[in-house]
Order: sequence, then structure tokens, then C-alpha cells
Amino acid sequence: MGIITLTTDFGLDDFHVASLKGSIYTQLSEVTVVDISHQIMPFDLIQTAYILKNSYNDFPKGTIHIIGVDALPNTFIKPIAAEVNGHFFICNDNGILSLIAEEINPDQIIEITINKYDEIHFLTKDLFVPVACHLARGGKLDLVGRKITTFKKLTQLKPIEKNEDNSITGIIIYIDNYGNAVTNISQKQFQQFGKNRPFTLFARNTKFSKIFTKYSDLLGNEPDEKKFHGKALAIFNSSGYIQISMYKSNLKTVGGASSLMGLDIGTQIRLVFE
Amino acid sequence: MGIITLTTDFGLDDFHVASLKGSIYTQLSEVTVVDISHQIMPFDLIQTAYILKNSYNDFPKGTIHIIGVDALPNTFIKPIAAEVNGHFFICNDNGILSLIAEEINPDQIIEITINKYDEIHFLTKDLFVPVACHLARGGKLDLVGRKITTFKKLTQLKPIEKNEDNSITGIIIYIDNYGNAVTNISQKQFQQFGKNRPFTLFARNTKFSKIFTKYSDLLGNEPDEKKFHGKALAIFNSSGYIQISMYKSNLKTVGGASSLMGLDIGTQIRLVFE
Amino acid sequence: MGIITLTTDFGLDDFHVASLKGSIYTQLSEVTVVDISHQIMPFDLIQTAYILKNSYNDFPKGTIHIIGVDALPNTFIKPIAAEVNGHFFICNDNGILSLIAEEINPDQIIEITINKYDEIHFLTKDLFVPVACHLARGGKLDLVGRKITTFKKLTQLKPIEKNEDNSITGIIIYIDNYGNAVTNISQKQFQQFGKNRPFTLFARNTKFSKIFTKYSDLLGNEPDEKKFHGKALAIFNSSGYIQISMYKSNLKTVGGASSLMGLDIGTQIRLVFE
Repeated sequence: MGIITLTTDFGLDDFHVASLKGSIYTQLSEVTVVDISHQIMPFDLIQTAYILKNSYNDFPKGTIHIIGVDALPNTFIKPIAAEVNGHFFICNDNGILSLIAEEINPDQIIEITINKYDEIHFLTKDLFVPVACHLARGGKLDLVGRKITTFKKLTQLKPIEKNEDNSITGIIIYIDNYGNAVTNISQKQFQQFGKNRPFTLFARNTKFSKIFTKYSDLLGNEPDEKKFHGKALAIFNSSGYIQISMYKSNLKTVGGASSLMGLDIGTQIRLVFE
Repeated sequence: MGIITLTTDFGLDDFHVASLKGSIYTQLSEVTVVDISHQIMPFDLIQTAYILKNSYNDFPKGTIHIIGVDALPNTFIKPIAAEVNGHFFICNDNGILSLIAEEINPDQIIEITINKYDEIHFLTKDLFVPVACHLARGGKLDLVGRKITTFKKLTQLKPIEKNEDNSITGIIIYIDNYGNAVTNISQKQFQQFGKNRPFTLFARNTKFSKIFTKYSDLLGNEPDEKKFHGKALAIFNSSGYIQISMYKSNLKTVGGASSLMGLDIGTQIRLVFE
Repeated sequence: MGIITLTTDFGLDDFHVASLKGSIYTQLSEVTVVDISHQIMPFDLIQTAYILKNSYNDFPKGTIHIIGVDALPNTFIKPIAAEVNGHFFICNDNGILSLIAEEINPDQIIEITINKYDEIHFLTKDLFVPVACHLARGGKLDLVGRKITTFKKLTQLKPIEKNEDNSITGIIIYIDNYGNAVTNISQKQFQQFGKNRPFTLFARNTKFSKIFTKYSDLLGNEPDEKKFHGKALAIFNSSGYIQISMYKSNLKTVGGASSLMGLDIGTQIRLVFE
């Protein structure tokens, strides 16, 4: 039984997600459909890539991922299907594939040529779903179109390393449900550039001289963890990136790291080593 | 394996949706449960009908649709189950069936008489779910109650055609996730009344003299689609209705057609032909 | 085919819920995963317990419930798995189990000792999911750790009964999607203490002398239910607790009982019998 995941910016109020699922079950009764997210900010490829990069690999190899973000029919953008790291992605060639497959080259990319493209209104349903069902049935990728070797490349802002002042300058790329602010500086880059030197991490008006690897390390030997509620800290998150957090903060009531420290997507973060 | 869909105004924060699903799986282990929406505005039958009419037909014939909107036990409103176009709907006889089956007559309608109606607290779970599970097992519709031939009729506002000034006056009936404003004027009505004459479409202070059939037609031969971001247009949407949109607008940041052009549910839209 | 439910405060915007589901399907292809809620207020155990207590029992016996709320790895809090009333709960020993199993003693409690606890970043995925999959495969509970007999107890505020002035004082413990305000005073307590005496229920500035058992009782013999829209009433809800409601109110537009009567979580409610 195959798995098809859905990542869209359709929201959960409209009928579009239900239409996709109905279409899938009409074409294929034995399939598991999993929502990755339908709450992507409209047309936001960076957010789409962040969410997919951090979750697709938890699914079994062979899972088919439909990306209904920036998926309008468009003569200048081709619909594509690609195999990356044993997973299939079906999307518009709008650059999203390059963000997901940043570190892993696609094994195969197909420009989808089935269906009369000109008659299509709802691309995700009318084109991506049939391709996904074909793959879920065990069909071959190269049957849905013709092989291509180039695809649109988007590059995310990479942190800038400066040897002259021993600094790495990155940005906040994501604010999560708790108000935690995720940076684009990875633990790997931190370690390679920092070489165990002492450092200061600047996030607006807050400074950190330590980056935790787990929240529980913050507690030390203090059993009363309530003392730490709301405490600011920097941590390597479960995706391996530096994240500015507040211990057990609540964005909806007292506020989180993002709201209380003034951190937003795009805010500069600076690491200076001694 | 049968499919049961759920459309409710319960929201996703409370326990009610989980209770429904648990009840279904307790009565029937081999079934696929699909959420159509749980974000319907409380008691809003027009929105419920809009969402179901645009998605139910994407599901396989034989799918069972539970409607938990305006579904309080009520001595004056009977619970019903109906077969429409090969699909089953289970709901209160509050008018919702007439909105869904506007153009297609129900093949069969049953007033549900199983269970002791007076002892029921949670109608959707205690009455609609057992009926749905009965149908999903392949049970006959007429076993759950007695046949009826009349049911409550609600009529939606229809666009008004005036031959004396060659106009159609409709209203906005839905605002979607992107801020697109959907009217109740169909492509079919537009074509039959308009007979290819030039026209002006008035939506508050904005006028349109063209209605696109696809977003990509807006782009013409211009490959840089960024030039069109935020551009207002009228389009026949994938459901076949005239829709006022802004190309790649974002309701959550810069605003969409609804917020920027002052279009709301009920706002009048006027088409004048030459 | 086993059922695994998910209750978390992860929200639906982030990738964490998708990661959990992907991990489950990677470890177990034949399983039904059901979302109870991912919209729990961050770290709110009272709300988690309210939602689970009111829905878990609708699922079949043997269902496995993962609780990803306040589930950070923490040296002072042990991860546990327990069997309660034929259901399995996997959570941190932060008190949540005592709130769910308030009236029913766990049959068995295990401190989970599989996996290297110190290396775990994402406790719900890295520890709770493998335990859930083990149980869903029919594995024994006592294989995942060692039996324990004590667990952290949290007590919710219980209504206070005063014989000297024939009163019960409770509080609002939950506001639902419609703005209905749920109290912690049960129908059972009301009946045992009240013994059919007349009473007044005080909710801020509103008084009630009747508690309905169904919304339809409010209507009496009046067939035009629109006359009752927005009317305040007290009712025993489907969970068996006194609830302050407004008939067919809409929190998102005109307001509900909570917003219009000033009722919030923690607001005192007083019942005085004659």
C-alpha cells in the first residue's frame, strides 16, 4: 500500500484539500494519504522546503510527495516529477525542487507531459494526483513524461563566514508553533568554523555564550524545572540548526522567543568567535 | 473498503471530531475516514453546501457524507439520509440537502428512525455515525428509517437577469483562503445571457472587461510572471463560477481581492453587456 | 490493524506532526493513525486531559494514545506507558496520566527504558512512536521497560460543596469552539447534592434556575427555533457537566457565551440550592 503526502497552501477552510483526497481515492482505493501541511503561507517556497526537508525522510522510501504550492498552470513553468533520495516529488518547476534537493541530487527528473495541459484548471488535482496514483500503483516515473536534466534553481541565503573577524552571520528562517526562532546556521557549520573556541551569539538585544544540545541540559541538577519557564536559550534543534528559544514559552499567551526578543523571519543573527 | 467523509462546524480544537472518528472505528475497522472540513462557520448551511457541492463528486460513488452542521437534536427537525447522484448524505433536514441537491434530485430520502431519538445528546455521533457505518458495510438505506418524499427547501439567492438593461446582478458567496471572492454567476449563465457581447463587470470600484479562463492566460507572452503579482482579474474558477482574484495575492500579508477591493460575502457584483 | 492516536501541542503549521506520522508508517505499514488534536495550548495538561477523557473511550479497546504535550526529554521526568481501561497511553510522567485516569486506576504502568534516553532530541518521535508501534504489533507492554507503581499526581480543582449555605462553587474549565463554557460541576454531583431542590446558578451577572438536558428542550412547543438564537441557557453537556451556552451562537461573529457573558477558564460558577 503506497503513501501519498500532501503539502499545499490551500488552507483547511476551502474544499480543495477534500477534492484532492477524493480524487486520489477514486483512482486508487488502497492508499494512505497523509497531510504534511496545508497551512503554508500562500506561494511561500522557502517555508514549503523547510517543512518538507525536515519531514519527508521520516516516511518510508517510495513515498510520493505532492506539492500544491505555487502550482498554477503556467506556460512558462513546467510540471515535473523527480526521484530524490528514494522519494518522489511532484511539483511545478518553480524552484522548490532545488530547495528540497539542495544537498542530494535528484536521481531522475521528468517533465510531466500526460494530459492536455491547456485544459487544466486545478493543476494539483488534474495533473499531480494522476501522476501520484500512477507511481503509487508501482508505475514507472519515466512513463509520465520525458526526462530532463536541468531544473529551476533557487538558492537560499547562506550564512556568511568572515575569517577577518571570526564571525558567521545568518538569519532567522522559520518561527515555529512555540515562537522558537530557527536560524540557517547549522551545528555542522558552527563546529567546523568555530573549532571549539568560545563565542558570543547575538540575536538583537540578547546575547548567548552557550548553545545547548537538549532542553534538559538547561536544568542541570535543579529538579524544579518551573524555575526555568520563560528562560531564553540557544539550542541545536532536532533538525541540526541553531534555534533561539524560550523554555516552555507560549506564543499565544505570554509570548515566545520571536515576539519577546523581536525575532522575525529575516532577522540577522551573528556568531562571533574569540 | 467504504469511505466516510466528515463535514462539521466542530473546529479542530475540541474533542468532538476525535469522538466521531473513534466511534466509526469502533463500529467498523476497515473504513477510510476523510475530513472534508471542520472549519465551517457555526451553523452556516450556505458555506457547508458550497464546500460539499465542490468536492463530494471527486469521491468515489458510494461514499457516505456525514454533515455535522446545525445537527442538534430537535423535535421539529428530522434526521435524514439521502442518496444523491450515487452518494449518500446523512444530515438534519434543515435545508442543507436542498442546497446540495439543487440541480440533482435525490434518488431516495429516508427519515432516520433508529435509536431512541429522545435520549440522544450528540446527534452526529449517536445517530449519524451508526447510519454511516451501516451503509459502509453495504447495508440498505431503507433499513434505517422510513421513506419520505418531501424535505426542507432552502433557496440561495440566484443572480437576477434584466433584459431591459442587459445586466446580471449577482453576489459574492464565498471568500477563499487566498482572498479570492467567488460570485454566484456561473460561466454557463454568463455565456447564455451574454451571447459573446462585450461587457463590463463591476465589483465595487473595480471594473473588468475580460474574464480569464486560466491564470496563465493573464501572463500572455510575458515570461516574467512576477510583473503580475497582485494584479486584479476576473476568472472562471475551477468550479465554473466568476471569481474576482488578485494574481498570487496573500491574504495574510499584503491582502487579497477580498480585503483590498472591499469584497465580502453578500457584496453585489454587476455584469452589464453592450 | 491497530489504531494509534496523536494528541500534541505541535500545531498544524510545523513539520512535527508529519514527522510522527512518517515514522509510524516507516515502522508499521498496516496501522490507522488518528489525530485527536494538535491544537492543545502549549504545555497545557488540563486541556489535554479534558480532550482525551472525553474522546479516548470512543475508540476501540486496545487503541494506543500518544501524548506529545510537555514531552521534552528531561532527566527528572520519566517517560511512561500505561494501560487504563483497556487503552494504552504513552506520555511523560508529568501528571497527565493522573488527570486522565482520575477515576480509573491504571492496570499497569511501565517506565520506558528502551533507547538511549540521553541521545534523544524529539522524544515523541524517537521514543513514544517506537513504543506505540511495538504495542500496535501486539507486543507486550512490559517489554518496553520496568513496572512502576507510583506516578506523578496532579489534582484538578474540585468543586467545593458547602452544607452551611447549600452551595456548590465550581469553575469554568474549558471554552469550546462555539464559545460554550464548560464547568467542572457534573450532573451526578448536582443531583447528589441538590436532591431535586430548586436552585439558582450564578455565572457572573447571569442567573439560571433551570439546567436543560438537551438543546431541543429549550424550544418547548415553539416550532420557530430562530426565536431562540442567542438565548443563554445552562445545560448538561454530552460529557455530563454543567455548561453555560448560548443557543446557536457564533463566537466568530456575534460572540458566544464566553465572550458575551465574560466567562473564561477559571471563572467561578456558583450553584445555590434552597
